[in-house]
Amino acid sequence: MLFFTQCFGAVLDLIHLRFQHYKAKRVFSAAGQLVCVVNPTHSLKYAPTRCAAVQASSEQGTLPPCHHHEAVHDPQLVPCTCPLFSCPWEGHLEVAVSHLRQTHRINILQGAEIVFLATDMHLPAPTDWIIMHSCLGHQFLLVLRKQEKYEGHPQFFATMMLIGTPSQADNFTYRLELNRNQRRLKWEATPRSILECVDSVISDGDCLVLNTSLAQLFSDNGSLAIGIAITTSKVHSSEAEM
Amino acid sequence: MLFFTQCFGAVLDLIHLRFQHYKAKRVFSAAGQLVCVVNPTHSLKYAPTRCAAVQASSEQGTLPPCHHHEAVHDPQLVPCTCPLFSCPWEGHLEVAVSHLRQTHRINILQGAEIVFLATDMHLPAPTDWIIMHSCLGHQFLLVLRKQEKYEGHPQFFATMMLIGTPSQADNFTYRLELNRNQRRLKWEATPRSILECVDSVISDGDCLVLNTSLAQLFSDNGSLAIGIAITTSKVHSSEAEM
Repeated sequence: MLFFTQCFGAVLDLIHLRFQHYKAKRVFSAAGQLVCVVNPTHSLKYAPTRCAAVQASSEQGTLPPCHHHEAVHDPQLVPCTCPLFSCPWEGHLEVAVSHLRQTHRINILQGAEIVFLATDMHLPAPTDWIIMHSCLGHQFLLVLRKQEKYEGHPQFFATMMLIGTPSQADNFTYRLELNRNQRRLKWEATPRSILECVDSVISDGDCLVLNTSLAQLFSDNGSLAIGIAITTSKVHSSEAEM
Repeated sequence: MLFFTQCFGAVLDLIHLRFQHYKAKRVFSAAGQLVCVVNPTHSLKYAPTRCAAVQASSEQGTLPPCHHHEAVHDPQLVPCTCPLFSCPWEGHLEVAVSHLRQTHRINILQGAEIVFLATDMHLPAPTDWIIMHSCLGHQFLLVLRKQEKYEGHPQFFATMMLIGTPSQADNFTYRLELNRNQRRLKWEATPRSILECVDSVISDGDCLVLNTSLAQLFSDNGSLAIGIAITTSKVHSSEAEM
């Protein structure tokens, strides 16, 4: 009996996911655009200044610091960049992607333009929605975070980090786009390097920021569809020309 | 002596305005785009629910209500729509623009695309920056407001209202664009009718919302340049097509 109940539940989940996928495709025009349903993860190791927390624990000899390379024994090694867990791993940047995939089970998607469909937006903060995005020969980490920067007022923060160095990151521009109910919001910026620590990018507010009311206007049945595009940096030409 | 000091002050102000104007033109590419320097006004009559406040005072027989037409004696008459002052004026929608210009001294600008350069962003909330924009045969009211929705955390809210009816407003799309430091933020939506009361649009958060940190990233020497464009509604075709 339990088996049948579980089967029925799984089928319902599949139908629900399929329905969400269909709706996201309706909103984002390009026919062949890949829609990825991303489920939330409750941040287990989240603290307002996680970098400081990581640094503090590194002083106790357990973890390497975030973005404080002088304290890492081998300067070629980087700490684990997973925004969800404090993890003692350190290794070369080239193998950071496989560590994130295998140890932290973060999905990776291919394609220049994808749709990130974050489910269950109503879950309490702190919550993260994360995928990796493989594009133009590099891997990027997309982080959507629900966080209470001001107590009692959760906000959503979305940013894209290159799994690479800051100078490599300068070669790209990413765009996040919300589009629903005759409203459209676009954020374009240079991705930050994963070495800069996603927590500090979010605490600086240098990313797409949504109040709960705006997030509700853009979300559909508790899911928020974010169109993502990455290009090589020639987008801000209007600024450069002047 | 005082005369010379005042003259010198005036010349300095002019140089400062000219410099801001030049900088705004640098950021926004189109050669002939009109840049309008908008000075702040401290909201004299601001209250978190001004509509309710206006309604309360109307119950005392002093003011017509905001968006509660059943209480207006002549249904053809609308109350003053100035977001800055509680004003006892009421009149036909057709003469609302001349009332706003003459009584409340709100500037009006012509052109499909203009740059709104709000100065002195550091001033404490509540503060408003307001202009009218004449375009495509209609007049629009652009409101940028600094407000503490959550105490101690001022935010910036920008919206565009048509000085016309809601059904007329449905024919247009407005775009607000911030562009600086290799970052770009665009908000596109259908303007709301001025009859809907700007305070409720802002309290609903159905507008461009900026945290102080994002506003600082986009502002230059205390001034925020917002590119404004208005088109007739065919922009959201990607949504309609599906």
